[in-house]
Amino acid sequence: MTTLGTRAAARSLKAEAMPAISIPSLLIYRHHPRRLATALSSIRHLNLSLFSHSTSPFSLCVESSAQSPAANARSGRSGSLAAPPAQLDGVQKIEVNPPKGTRDFPPEDMRLRSWLFQNFREVSQLFGFEEVDFPVLESEALFIRKAGEEIRDQLYCFEDRGNRRVALRPELTPSLARLVIQKGKSVPLPLKWFAIGQCWRYERMTRGRRREHYQWNMDIIGVPDVTAEAELISSIITFFKRIGITSLDVGFKVSSRKVLQDVLRCYSVPENMFSRVCVIIDKQLEKIPIEDIKKELKSAELSEVAIEELLQVLSVKSLEKLEEKLGTDAEALADLKKLFSLAEKYGYSEWIQFDASVVRGLAYYTGIVFEGFDREGKLRAICGGGRYDKLLSTFGGDDLPACGFGFGDAVIVELLKEKGLIPELSLQVDNIVCSLDPDLQGAASSVATILREKGQTVDLVLENKPLKWVFKRAARINAGRLILVGSDEWRRGTVGVKILSSGEQYEVQVKELQ
Amino acid sequence: MTTLGTRAAARSLKAEAMPAISIPSLLIYRHHPRRLATALSSIRHLNLSLFSHSTSPFSLCVESSAQSPAANARSGRSGSLAAPPAQLDGVQKIEVNPPKGTRDFPPEDMRLRSWLFQNFREVSQLFGFEEVDFPVLESEALFIRKAGEEIRDQLYCFEDRGNRRVALRPELTPSLARLVIQKGKSVPLPLKWFAIGQCWRYERMTRGRRREHYQWNMDIIGVPDVTAEAELISSIITFFKRIGITSLDVGFKVSSRKVLQDVLRCYSVPENMFSRVCVIIDKQLEKIPIEDIKKELKSAELSEVAIEELLQVLSVKSLEKLEEKLGTDAEALADLKKLFSLAEKYGYSEWIQFDASVVRGLAYYTGIVFEGFDREGKLRAICGGGRYDKLLSTFGGDDLPACGFGFGDAVIVELLKEKGLIPELSLQVDNIVCSLDPDLQGAASSVATILREKGQTVDLVLENKPLKWVFKRAARINAGRLILVGSDEWRRGTVGVKILSSGEQYEVQVKELQ
Repeated sequence: MTTLGTRAAARSLKAEAMPAISIPSLLIYRHHPRRLATALSSIRHLNLSLFSHSTSPFSLCVESSAQSPAANARSGRSGSLAAPPAQLDGVQKIEVNPPKGTRDFPPEDMRLRSWLFQNFREVSQLFGFEEVDFPVLESEALFIRKAGEEIRDQLYCFEDRGNRRVALRPELTPSLARLVIQKGKSVPLPLKWFAIGQCWRYERMTRGRRREHYQWNMDIIGVPDVTAEAELISSIITFFKRIGITSLDVGFKVSSRKVLQDVLRCYSVPENMFSRVCVIIDKQLEKIPIEDIKKELKSAELSEVAIEELLQVLSVKSLEKLEEKLGTDAEALADLKKLFSLAEKYGYSEWIQFDASVVRGLAYYTGIVFEGFDREGKLRAICGGGRYDKLLSTFGGDDLPACGFGFGDAVIVELLKEKGLIPELSLQVDNIVCSLDPDLQGAASSVATILREKGQTVDLVLENKPLKWVFKRAARINAGRLILVGSDEWRRGTVGVKILSSGEQYEVQVKELQ
Repeated sequence: MTTLGTRAAARSLKAEAMPAISIPSLLIYRHHPRRLATALSSIRHLNLSLFSHSTSPFSLCVESSAQSPAANARSGRSGSLAAPPAQLDGVQKIEVNPPKGTRDFPPEDMRLRSWLFQNFREVSQLFGFEEVDFPVLESEALFIRKAGEEIRDQLYCFEDRGNRRVALRPELTPSLARLVIQKGKSVPLPLKWFAIGQCWRYERMTRGRRREHYQWNMDIIGVPDVTAEAELISSIITFFKRIGITSLDVGFKVSSRKVLQDVLRCYSVPENMFSRVCVIIDKQLEKIPIEDIKKELKSAELSEVAIEELLQVLSVKSLEKLEEKLGTDAEALADLKKLFSLAEKYGYSEWIQFDASVVRGLAYYTGIVFEGFDREGKLRAICGGGRYDKLLSTFGGDDLPACGFGFGDAVIVELLKEKGLIPELSLQVDNIVCSLDPDLQGAASSVATILREKGQTVDLVLENKPLKWVFKRAARINAGRLILVGSDEWRRGTVGVKILSSGEQYEVQVKELQ
């Protein structure tokens, strides 16, 4: 604690008028701590130095550095409850990074996350959706499906201390389905629910990919019509627009799994192969040679003719061509036509395009599927969703028409960075309150309390610090006002107020503080 | 989908003026869906029935019913990745409740949770704190301390698929300490951070206790003075006041671990026994016979004289008596006196009292400790915290003065229920938009989009439903207005608007909709 010169500085501050800061609009400084510091440094008699701290506010996506093997060996096993660590109350050098593939959210990253979540929430509410949540830990059985999904191979599962198989959820939809079955007929349909939850995956050999992300979901339960899908896509587009993304940046590829279903039916492929075929197509389509896809499809009991037809259909990019392939009265076609017609009325036609190759990787989709992609083609899918009318019965419930989407927090931030659209979000506090004498700390507490009761945010200086330090801190937290509690003023029932953007300062009765 | 009578009803609605509803102020109905339904049912020609759905919005604390052993056996093992379940794409009856000891948050519970969290956030911000977060999954080593804490015995730990020992965090402070060490000298002190995170514990034989809860934490890093503790307690009290809790409902017991330290030093008990003794005292004090405490303390190498003295000191309830025991210049006394003097200035003296028996159950506290309790004595501690100046060095970092508190989401809700202070929180949507003809669904989408672009929340009816159904839904979601899109009006570029609180209805140009 440095106390040198505090009182003297305070008196000099009070006695002399503060030199006016010469830059035209100082209001902008609240958003630019370093510039404010620069300006303050021109206040000669306080001899302020530049604010030295600088962090990047936007490292949401930065992977924590991997733990060293040595650190793993040290921390990985020692904590078994049966065999405690060797140190008794002693020093145990911990790994300072979060576990591999996970993130801390220091304030600068948390601000971005909160901003993103707030936009998710506000858009969901604009559409009349209600927020829900589920446990991040679920019974493993909830996520076990037999279609060979990537999500299943990467399940973050384990046995708990009661020998139950559990998993950190990889997605939110199965929990939603579980809750809908549980609620049964007690809830009037349709349900329009949204959730923002952390989801997990475990990849054995990964480098540079995260093991957790947050996902925004919106789901409509109880509406069989594609009006539901149209509404969901509208909400995602509303979100994009809010954060500055346009249809030049992002598009939606839309198809229907009924297209594939039609083809498979034609070739008498058994119904229970449907999910598996979809998952194969989604996994393989853009990554590996066509011959390997064919091999996989063959192993799913598809004939060579069926495979050829399937691959041909997948390459279709217009509804007209699709109509030629499937005939006018195909169910898939009717759905898609209606969706595109609604899109026009919603006003988002330029965002969406038909693309039969979109299948999505989750086993349970049954109808319309869609994904948001960046038009530059640099990033993975931004979001994806579709109709899943048969999920509830796979859990032993009665089926209900349902559709929804998932929207992760990672790719969107990459896109915002690409486009220079990450917002400037800095801490802002209305007041910094400081006593000029250790004996006045209690008085400063009273002042802080008065201001807070009026809804003002207050950073109370809790130590006896020189004014130079206080100004630095004021700059760092973008304080609007500095409230100084000095003994002479306090005796008069007043405090000193300094508007930090303008340098204006005055004395005010404590009870008149607003 | 029932379409019978929609058009006819619409026409009759338009042709006839709606009968005025005779209850004086209908505005209150937005908060009382059932009363609104009752009122609506008086609109004779629509023959509305009472809204039948009713859920309790405030079951935040209701434990999920335990899974039946049969259900566990069925779902517990089958999901091993090596041995998949027998069903191929088939029905697998899942347990519809969340895992034992965890909660779902359906909309009515989520509203209460959001309200609570919003208050946590706003209070933290009033005090100038910044939000942070950490992974819910941490290396187990972070939580392994040798003081015999309950929290350690109940660690929700397991081995991940990479054979690392990990744990679902039981508390937030160790993660915060880890992040502070990681950030090192790059962050200017003091840090004022808050977090709201889910925490986990595993109890083998429990019934009726939850395995997860959410915890609000506020921490100040870098302030050695009790001004920090005083500020933290002030923030909790600010929270209580906001939600209607007074000092007649709740108090804080405050002590300092330095009191015990003084006694132990007197009797030459080794420093490394300190945490363990604190944990023993906290665990045992109110639960088991004095003889058992003595036995435990003896096993921690305390002499009988030391034990007697310790127990005597713990019974002290005033600072005057403490001064008699410890002498005027005891460090503990100076801290406590300063804290009580600050409390006066903050204006919360009537909330706090000295009580030497408060020790808190976490190993790492070193100075002031405090807990919030309900004055009726019915509930467990509502919140607790204290100073932990030596935690960072136990992790291999450089120590920094630090203090903080944890405030769970469970006991506070019990208290609010006891006091009848649970707020009425119901879904409210500005508009419900409905087309009177399937062909006008697209037009209804346009109207919804226009309203949403103006910031209005809109529930769009996605199916062709009779008006009776629409009124029921409007009541359930507390819609402010019903916007009807009919073909005649649409041709004129207008829609029908009905203010649901007053029954007032009029036609308005679509482009003039606000």
